[in-house]
Amino acid sequence: MNGTELVTGIGELTTHDESGERLHNAALVIGEGRILWIGPAARAPAADRRTDVDGRAVLPGWVDTHTHLVFSGDRSAEFEARMAGQAYAAGGINTTVTATRAAPEEQLVATARNLRHEAETQGTTFLETKTGYGLDVASEERSARAAANVADVVTYLGAHIVPAGMDRRAYIDLVTGPMLTAVLPYVQFIDAFCEKGAFDVEESREVLLAGRAAGLELRVHGNQLGFSGGVRLAVELGAASVDHCNYLEPADIDALAVGTTVATLLPACDLSTRQPFAPARRLLDAGVVIALATNCNPGTSYTTSMPLCVATAVLQMGLTVREAVWAATRGAARALGRDRGADAVGSLFVGGRADLQVLNAPSISHLAYRVGVPLTAAVWRSGVRVD
Amino acid sequence: MNGTELVTGIGELTTHDESGERLHNAALVIGEGRILWIGPAARAPAADRRTDVDGRAVLPGWVDTHTHLVFSGDRSAEFEARMAGQAYAAGGINTTVTATRAAPEEQLVATARNLRHEAETQGTTFLETKTGYGLDVASEERSARAAANVADVVTYLGAHIVPAGMDRRAYIDLVTGPMLTAVLPYVQFIDAFCEKGAFDVEESREVLLAGRAAGLELRVHGNQLGFSGGVRLAVELGAASVDHCNYLEPADIDALAVGTTVATLLPACDLSTRQPFAPARRLLDAGVVIALATNCNPGTSYTTSMPLCVATAVLQMGLTVREAVWAATRGAARALGRDRGADAVGSLFVGGRADLQVLNAPSISHLAYRVGVPLTAAVWRSGVRVD
Ligand SMILES: [Zn+2]
Ligand SMILES: [Zn+2]
Repeated sequence: MNGTELVTGIGELTTHDESGERLHNAALVIGEGRILWIGPAARAPAADRRTDVDGRAVLPGWVDTHTHLVFSGDRSAEFEARMAGQAYAAGGINTTVTATRAAPEEQLVATARNLRHEAETQGTTFLETKTGYGLDVASEERSARAAANVADVVTYLGAHIVPAGMDRRAYIDLVTGPMLTAVLPYVQFIDAFCEKGAFDVEESREVLLAGRAAGLELRVHGNQLGFSGGVRLAVELGAASVDHCNYLEPADIDALAVGTTVATLLPACDLSTRQPFAPARRLLDAGVVIALATNCNPGTSYTTSMPLCVATAVLQMGLTVREAVWAATRGAARALGRDRGADAVGSLFVGGRADLQVLNAPSISHLAYRVGVPLTAAVWRSGVRVD
Repeated sequence: MNGTELVTGIGELTTHDESGERLHNAALVIGEGRILWIGPAARAPAADRRTDVDGRAVLPGWVDTHTHLVFSGDRSAEFEARMAGQAYAAGGINTTVTATRAAPEEQLVATARNLRHEAETQGTTFLETKTGYGLDVASEERSARAAANVADVVTYLGAHIVPAGMDRRAYIDLVTGPMLTAVLPYVQFIDAFCEKGAFDVEESREVLLAGRAAGLELRVHGNQLGFSGGVRLAVELGAASVDHCNYLEPADIDALAVGTTVATLLPACDLSTRQPFAPARRLLDAGVVIALATNCNPGTSYTTSMPLCVATAVLQMGLTVREAVWAATRGAARALGRDRGADAVGSLFVGGRADLQVLNAPSISHLAYRVGVPLTAAVWRSGVRVD
């Protein structure tokens, strides 16, 4: 559908503009995928179509900065074993690698598309995904291509683990050499899983610097299962984000507070692995910029639900609703280097992308107040209504 | 619609029959609100209509044994204050009492109906609700009538708190006298909030025994905010259920283990009040029968989501998926005295009520594995499809 659309009757409008205020009795106009006007409902201009949201809350669509959607197979048996008391170990990734290598590319795309759609129906309008279940040149290349087919931003995670049966040194040479070359047309970021059982700090640095030399931006999986050094490596290298951050020493928090790296927290992963939550409150109080993401993957966090992440951050990690919503939208955009300029996501401003959602509630506080209730009433992505 | 309906292609069927097995490649036939047949899909009889659920999981509808749906007003400001660090105290109930007394009865019914419908779309097929925001004779009477209009089972909770400005002794005389008489046509259970700030053990006993003398079954709010003695009182009096159970001494668990009282746990309330979770694992290991419920109310747990309660019980309270699903269906039925006989709820058996749900997932394990994702695909209540 073309033309302009007036969304009016907005009971509470969260824009994340500089003032940080929520507007009441507001309206906005969408046209050609962009926001054309924002202001009081009483002064809204005419438009080709009109949607009255009847006092509901409107806010930017969620920005999910951390997903692993390109995979095949199910790990519900491993999940059930974990719920019966078995500890999580990074090695479970090999199960998914075997299944992913065996799957046709169109099946990988179809699975990722279904999950992306499921995320959209819960308000997610901008989404990153990764490679990392191929772990040989051909499989990583087709994973990257499948990811680029489905996601807004793609990260190369050849350095997820050393695949079973492969020499460590030879694998790192592959990741930083021919594999990197193969995925390069499809990816914008490079990532490394800096963790016991995956890659140590020196190996991670080597991988990340090879990516930077090839023109990629950096992100890091760090400090999920222990004090891995990943956080400080990320800050040292000026990575856009370091994700997980469950185990933080004071020096890690200090480094994040002075650096430019966003700390991306993954509450659903913490739940699903029965790990202690990341110290979100301590990070915010130290002045660290945080983001929230799902980490959607079949092993440790098989959810697309940003609303669950926001509610958990409020109810269990000590954030206020406003802080959690900011972290899941504008903070997340910063973790992808997309929080500024005309193509910024995670905030609503005149001239910007029309990525927004309506809640079946009068206020964003209901995202935590009404935890578990599916509250997404409507979603527009680049001005197009998701259904 | 009349006639029989065959639901086939069931990938996993949870019936909670004596064997406790989940069936695979199963089917069932519904007619006149009842289950007429359960068995292997390959041997299913013909029916007037046919619904193929394409490998999805089918299980009994949720039985939500603890809600407070008859109210008016919003307590999101109190919720936001709590999320900013303020502790929960029972006194907040007075806010809702004032608003509820002022609301027309048809508005009370409409609000409760909307919440019940919201619950049904998440799989709840049998629901208890309570009075307790009226707290004078006329307001409790119309609350009870509104509740009976909406819920399957109604509980009289005149003993919620002593309303502001009322003499304690005079109020208890009202609760056990004229107020009880007024609500009696509409209610099946009597309840007391046995907690510091509400009613002590002796007061609670007096209220509960007055209800029993009038022919009501008993349930108790106990040990939510401290060691209130409510649990042992409930067991002593043979109450059907004692709800909350956050603070338990060994003697409380011993009493529950030998008694007939179900321990009903309210994980969403624990989340929403930032309380420690009830010790679900210890209770199960001691042989106590537990149920899970939402405690849907505007103060401390404004959710209708049984799936969230089940997922939280697994991910954070140490239950297996099967234990949590049982507690939210058959265990819950026992907490209402409805787990046996032809009108039993919370289990699927030939001749029983056709209260069932289909998940957008191949197994009940996905209720926790995919936490936060709305997985309810279809719901039948007494054989009628909910939409
Ligand atoms: Zn990850
Ligand atoms: Zn209650």
